[in-house]
Amino acid sequence: MTQRKVEAAGNGWVGVDWGTSSLRAALLDGAGRVLEQRQSARGILSVAAGEFPAVLRELCGDWLAAGRLCLISGMAGSRQGWLEAPYCECPASRDDLARQLAWVDPGRIAIVPGLVCHHGGVPDVMRGEEVQVFGAMELLGVHDLVAVLPGTHSKWVEVHHGRIVSFATAMTGEFYALLRRHSILARTMDEDDGSLDEAAFVQGVKHAQRTGNLLQSAFSARTLALFERMPRAAMPSYLSGLVIGEELRSHYVADARGFVVIGAPELAQRYTLALDASVRCLGAEATWRGLASIAQSIGKP
Amino acid sequence: MTQRKVEAAGNGWVGVDWGTSSLRAALLDGAGRVLEQRQSARGILSVAAGEFPAVLRELCGDWLAAGRLCLISGMAGSRQGWLEAPYCECPASRDDLARQLAWVDPGRIAIVPGLVCHHGGVPDVMRGEEVQVFGAMELLGVHDLVAVLPGTHSKWVEVHHGRIVSFATAMTGEFYALLRRHSILARTMDEDDGSLDEAAFVQGVKHAQRTGNLLQSAFSARTLALFERMPRAAMPSYLSGLVIGEELRSHYVADARGFVVIGAPELAQRYTLALDASVRCLGAEATWRGLASIAQSIGKP
Repeated sequence: MTQRKVEAAGNGWVGVDWGTSSLRAALLDGAGRVLEQRQSARGILSVAAGEFPAVLRELCGDWLAAGRLCLISGMAGSRQGWLEAPYCECPASRDDLARQLAWVDPGRIAIVPGLVCHHGGVPDVMRGEEVQVFGAMELLGVHDLVAVLPGTHSKWVEVHHGRIVSFATAMTGEFYALLRRHSILARTMDEDDGSLDEAAFVQGVKHAQRTGNLLQSAFSARTLALFERMPRAAMPSYLSGLVIGEELRSHYVADARGFVVIGAPELAQRYTLALDASVRCLGAEATWRGLASIAQSIGKP
Repeated sequence: MTQRKVEAAGNGWVGVDWGTSSLRAALLDGAGRVLEQRQSARGILSVAAGEFPAVLRELCGDWLAAGRLCLISGMAGSRQGWLEAPYCECPASRDDLARQLAWVDPGRIAIVPGLVCHHGGVPDVMRGEEVQVFGAMELLGVHDLVAVLPGTHSKWVEVHHGRIVSFATAMTGEFYALLRRHSILARTMDEDDGSLDEAAFVQGVKHAQRTGNLLQSAFSARTLALFERMPRAAMPSYLSGLVIGEELRSHYVADARGFVVIGAPELAQRYTLALDASVRCLGAEATWRGLASIAQSIGKP
């Protein structure tokens, strides 16, 4: 970044999204607008204990040198991260999160806590997605919402009156990878996923929803191959439909609160196809806007 | 086997259960009683095309030399087996199976066909389990039954008026192995499964049934470990409870027709625990009795 840009930022502040396998940082102005972004492959799994400050300085030490506030969300707050930030209990507002920031450098650098909720006495957790959901509320101008953040472990989040009241994790992406790479179904698929076959994907969604149990519906990928009822190249799309259909079966309810997918456009496209409806989609901007909302809550920058 | 035993068998006949990873044979008398059993590790995956007759002769050529009838069930009838025996359509009786035997040596050696049924236009198949179900009917003296044959791919089979009317495959054992060995859940489990922890198993069953979706319930194995709410040694039992609970959620209905588990006693024990009820269990005897029933149907031996 040029000196001119830094000056244009005034005081500004720094947002950091530090996940398992990637690290992204943004320099933002007081209104939460992104002035510059940087990223690296130094996700927390690649960072040894004690090295977190140095890795952050390496990426954006120049931004921090000016004494700016830095808010970090994601797995950096986990036990394997920089500092374990205790989970905040649901229901939780952005102000609840702001009050429970874990400061690694008081007044300067803080980690946003994750959230915990309970289903039948069993805990569920997330770290990072809660910030994106608060960002989505601001971007959409709503206080009630159902959001899905698709991924290895998809998060389904319910927002009511501006608070995250409940959420649930679905291991959708991980089940896809397990079945795709390690199960008997892998034998009838090519190495490369190829491009999305929309018809096969929708067929998978429908079969999963009709069957109501992935243990059973997954076997259809075997028999359709056995009876040569589906081209080999369409199989990964069909399997993707099976797992996303299974996820939607339990988690999606058409709801007056509105529904948003927070994630990559190519994943949002699959939810649009599966629901046969236009679906709102937000990306990385939700993270920066969510961190900005927490910065406002603590009266900064 | 001693010469005396072979003579005692009179003509007798030979039953063979030829699966993916194992080969078992029995010499039986006219009443279907087992006189002698043998087994080998030469499942069909270890047998090259064209070598099936030699492998069978190696195991029980002496029994076959006397010109006895030999009935073979299982994956030997699949495309990767000795001879592809076309699937028989449901509903199917033992007489239907007997009429569609695939003879590899006419009048002497035959392969029992598998079954196919359809769920919403998608085929489901089994090979070998249908013979065990007909055997179970004979052993229990019933014509109506719901049977589960637990395993890598569990089969749930409905029998009405002596015919298999429908069945469904649940990839229960395979999902267990995928989650146990290849998923994030493997990180909080030891290499060895250890002995069954009954309380943890039942906790898993209940959580799966309450949650209603394995994509979600499986994540509880992660969070219970994270919050140190379950001992590491109990985790494999808990996971087993999750997958069996998910299977039962969709497939088990308390039914006046009666319910039987056909499989190893240690698996039947898990169904007894999961259902909190005494469950009838049958083992290998169901295979031999089922083959005997088909032999009777063709008027032999």
